[in-house]
Amino acid sequence: MADSTKDTSSVPKDPALTPTPSTTVADSSSSQAAAAPSPDGAADAPSKKGAKKAEAKAKKEAEKLRKQQEREALAAASAASSSSEDLAKDNYGQLTHATPRIAAGQVHLRDLGEGDVGRTVKVRAWIQNARMQGAKMAFVELREEGGWTVQGVVAVGSAAGAGDQEGKGKGEGEVSKQMVKWIEGLKLESFVSVEASVKKPLEPVKSCRVSGLELHLSKVFLVAAAPEMLGLGLGPASRAVGSLAEEESLEEKAQALAVTEGTPIASLATHLNNPAMHKRAPVSQAIADIRIAVEDLFCDYLRSQRFKKFHPPSLIGAASEGGANVFRLPYFGEEAYLAQSPQFYKQFEIAGGRKRVYCVGPVFRAENSNTPRHMTEFIGLDLEMEIEEHYHEVLHMLEAVLLHIFKGLTEHHREEIELIRSVYPSDEFLLPEPGKEVRLTFAEGQALLRAEGPPEFAHVSDDEDMSTAQEKALGALVRQKFHTDFYVLDKFPVGARPFYAMPDPEDPRVTNAYDFMMRGQEILSGGQRLHLPAELEATIRAKGLDPNQPGIKEYVDVFKSVGVPPHGGGGIGLDRVVAWYLNLPSVHLVCDYPRTPKRLSP
Amino acid sequence: MADSTKDTSSVPKDPALTPTPSTTVADSSSSQAAAAPSPDGAADAPSKKGAKKAEAKAKKEAEKLRKQQEREALAAASAASSSSEDLAKDNYGQLTHATPRIAAGQVHLRDLGEGDVGRTVKVRAWIQNARMQGAKMAFVELREEGGWTVQGVVAVGSAAGAGDQEGKGKGEGEVSKQMVKWIEGLKLESFVSVEASVKKPLEPVKSCRVSGLELHLSKVFLVAAAPEMLGLGLGPASRAVGSLAEEESLEEKAQALAVTEGTPIASLATHLNNPAMHKRAPVSQAIADIRIAVEDLFCDYLRSQRFKKFHPPSLIGAASEGGANVFRLPYFGEEAYLAQSPQFYKQFEIAGGRKRVYCVGPVFRAENSNTPRHMTEFIGLDLEMEIEEHYHEVLHMLEAVLLHIFKGLTEHHREEIELIRSVYPSDEFLLPEPGKEVRLTFAEGQALLRAEGPPEFAHVSDDEDMSTAQEKALGALVRQKFHTDFYVLDKFPVGARPFYAMPDPEDPRVTNAYDFMMRGQEILSGGQRLHLPAELEATIRAKGLDPNQPGIKEYVDVFKSVGVPPHGGGGIGLDRVVAWYLNLPSVHLVCDYPRTPKRLSP
Repeated sequence: MADSTKDTSSVPKDPALTPTPSTTVADSSSSQAAAAPSPDGAADAPSKKGAKKAEAKAKKEAEKLRKQQEREALAAASAASSSSEDLAKDNYGQLTHATPRIAAGQVHLRDLGEGDVGRTVKVRAWIQNARMQGAKMAFVELREEGGWTVQGVVAVGSAAGAGDQEGKGKGEGEVSKQMVKWIEGLKLESFVSVEASVKKPLEPVKSCRVSGLELHLSKVFLVAAAPEMLGLGLGPASRAVGSLAEEESLEEKAQALAVTEGTPIASLATHLNNPAMHKRAPVSQAIADIRIAVEDLFCDYLRSQRFKKFHPPSLIGAASEGGANVFRLPYFGEEAYLAQSPQFYKQFEIAGGRKRVYCVGPVFRAENSNTPRHMTEFIGLDLEMEIEEHYHEVLHMLEAVLLHIFKGLTEHHREEIELIRSVYPSDEFLLPEPGKEVRLTFAEGQALLRAEGPPEFAHVSDDEDMSTAQEKALGALVRQKFHTDFYVLDKFPVGARPFYAMPDPEDPRVTNAYDFMMRGQEILSGGQRLHLPAELEATIRAKGLDPNQPGIKEYVDVFKSVGVPPHGGGGIGLDRVVAWYLNLPSVHLVCDYPRTPKRLSP
Repeated sequence: MADSTKDTSSVPKDPALTPTPSTTVADSSSSQAAAAPSPDGAADAPSKKGAKKAEAKAKKEAEKLRKQQEREALAAASAASSSSEDLAKDNYGQLTHATPRIAAGQVHLRDLGEGDVGRTVKVRAWIQNARMQGAKMAFVELREEGGWTVQGVVAVGSAAGAGDQEGKGKGEGEVSKQMVKWIEGLKLESFVSVEASVKKPLEPVKSCRVSGLELHLSKVFLVAAAPEMLGLGLGPASRAVGSLAEEESLEEKAQALAVTEGTPIASLATHLNNPAMHKRAPVSQAIADIRIAVEDLFCDYLRSQRFKKFHPPSLIGAASEGGANVFRLPYFGEEAYLAQSPQFYKQFEIAGGRKRVYCVGPVFRAENSNTPRHMTEFIGLDLEMEIEEHYHEVLHMLEAVLLHIFKGLTEHHREEIELIRSVYPSDEFLLPEPGKEVRLTFAEGQALLRAEGPPEFAHVSDDEDMSTAQEKALGALVRQKFHTDFYVLDKFPVGARPFYAMPDPEDPRVTNAYDFMMRGQEILSGGQRLHLPAELEATIRAKGLDPNQPGIKEYVDVFKSVGVPPHGGGGIGLDRVVAWYLNLPSVHLVCDYPRTPKRLSP
């Protein structure tokens, strides 16, 4: 047993990249049962009972497939060599179990530098472009994660398989005509493993991100082939989306097929229907990187402020918020609901003795809103904290974490932002000078709209919530007057806030609650909560709800069960922060897999 | 407008801790509409249309309530003073809007040190215990987050309200008999704000975590009162749970009511039904802290290895795994499902050009399993990565991240672990020596069970998945032979793995897939995936499934749409890692809000 432990403790020397069932082990699997598929995951996988199926059939099919692949590889390799032997035949072709591996050390394109000139390296990348230069040479653009590209050169007669030329005959191992032709014929977005020597090009390769170096290819193996025709070419995938409509027209579908040149505009729907190509576009990866950065900056800052993370549940036993816009599902003979926010659970954490908590996770809204601002599932960045003296401690904390995020983006993600701006142009996101943060009361905001806004807002009320149009108009006024795209609207009217919002002790018409705005659009909602059960029950009744109804009773009971200190918090929509910071046309471009009333896939 | 911006930019000087609607603003709210409650969150809140209710009613109720509270506070303050004036009356009582605040700087108990002796400080904490010492003195144990406790002393005649004695008469501001009596009568788990002078006790206060200091209280204000009787006392909340049964018996319920002495054992159900008190127990906070540490260590390590985070969706359009154990829900006239794992989406990220990805989030299993290992919703820590040469690169990465987690816990969380062990005793979690990680093949594991395991496992098969009992027996054998509680079982039989598992090229009976074990229980499942669409389709058919069925087709299509490199990964159950590392009796003690077939609340 000790031996076998040792056996598996290191990576075998001759591993398989595309292993197919071996033919040497015959049919000892007849006793095996095919199990129903079960996803990975630590809890026991879903039931493993499945129809018993002969695995032998699978083996036969796989074997047939493998043979066919070998035939194809062989055919491709010798296609152009009907008249002459291909002395480079071991240095290219489809990678199978039997293909010799590349011994050179693997490098990532982003790590390549001047110091690598002269080195023989291994690179694994996508074919982004390939073209013949005359009859004996081909240029191949290779791409890695993050849009790192480099020019590959392959020329008939140059030494192939550098490093293993010993004992070979004349011409053997050199790049052949057949090899160049085969490489040029590889389908775009295929994945290849190459051996190459790093050289300095005569002049910088402007079309590639690694412009000061090029790779002279000596071996090229096809690891995974792309199809003849892509559903979305890298060209249109890398441009701004056209229509934001949820369904794609046939015309749009056809346009998206154009692969390299002319780079037509594809609709958002076409992008989302072709997730692999949509995500391969450098602009998509840059947006995803910014999204990760926002989340990480949020968490890092709160950890530094002694916040503790926790995970609220998604499945809840009662539609706590009155039942509107809640997803319901059957749950072992009962009914369950999907949480619309972690609100109650954040407060339970405070009741449970935490001073400051935060959470990051999905929340769900069964709202039939088909706008670029809405999704039925989105990631919320939420926090809640004890209030020591005044609820503005919370407001200031939320302001601080967002300013920390904006600062982090500006300081460490300039490159991604510039790349995104080259596709989706936007003005710099204006921030207030330190110490001059803009905080208007709701009434002040409405007064500004009445006085200086568009005529249709000349009579807006201080007691009614703002519409999206009002918010945008106010955002424009604030930008003009205060030179910031980020500001706070405080003291919302009671009618615009839920039952748990703390009324202002000085003015019962308004609450100690606020929204945060970016470019005139809401990205955060929060405030102080009622922490004394008697006041909470009174407010619940005043809102026309019953403190004893399911969902609400369990909530109130927690405040009755112990003494809970004053507290407040807020919830930030991750995708909105990213979208409005970059001025993107839709949050659906930010979310990894957006969910809308019309979209549940991929 | 600039003025008003400035006005709200700093915390007001005389803030309200428990603001109640002021009586000075009369009834200007008659024009307001009561809105349906909407949770905080950045997307538009659920519909704000609600029944119009007069807010005036709420104000009246709140006003009535406030007056009642004031009367009660007054009554409490003067209860014992029928015969004498209470000269300390401004230094204690229920905190209302009008109560003078404490001017001293606030400190956290964990930050208190010798250097604070002589300082006057403000502390906000829970009353953990209070008792009279003779007729003129009371001891009050105060507790903050993390189980930080300190002894408070309050004695008749000592100077109250230190720092504001100027211009006061004799006796005025000194601690009165009434004040001591009132403090001693505060309900346990009430939240108070106190002013105190930090002193060195005559001898260390062994019952408190801050044992080298004590607080001489000069002002005590009640911020939030606990009820007369707690549903679960801190004593039983701080002990190991008794019964793991999902329903609590009446007897158990009654036992849990005993608050301080005798510390009876409460069932898990009683703990979970009293979330605030369950969570206030230091052992619960320590377990939650370990859970956060595991997640953070996971993320930090993967970030250092260039993994990129993403968020898979919870709502999906098809029950991709065959439909067993999947939650279904109505979705705008269609049907949606809750994801059982992020499996497909991790792979889509690789197809989309990421080399390495990870995610942290909830996954759902509609499995009617009522065991201490199962939940219907749990947090998965998942990763997926490109394979360069061999799938053991992934296995080694998973091993490395888990070893990083274990090392991090040992090095930085010794204190929490010791606290947890004092409640839930456990043997040290044994780890393999570096370079001597234990990796058995599934067949080797079964052979070991046959040869040296209990007699009932004398004939276990290499082709069938292990039962939980087998896993535990093998875990015990491995601990005995290799002195480790952490090991890998590799090369699972094809029958025990889903359709996307890559078969071993050397032996088609087994897969390039593995489970990771802690104390003989699975915490991770993973492996190499099929990345070539033709092989994938063949395996799907061999498992008796249809590559064109909903959910599977969309999955296969992604691999057809581009060339996808070889890849593999794994999924870790967060709560299991914590539970088995600490040898806790149930994952329900680890999860913040466990969900089981029988539990959807709180």
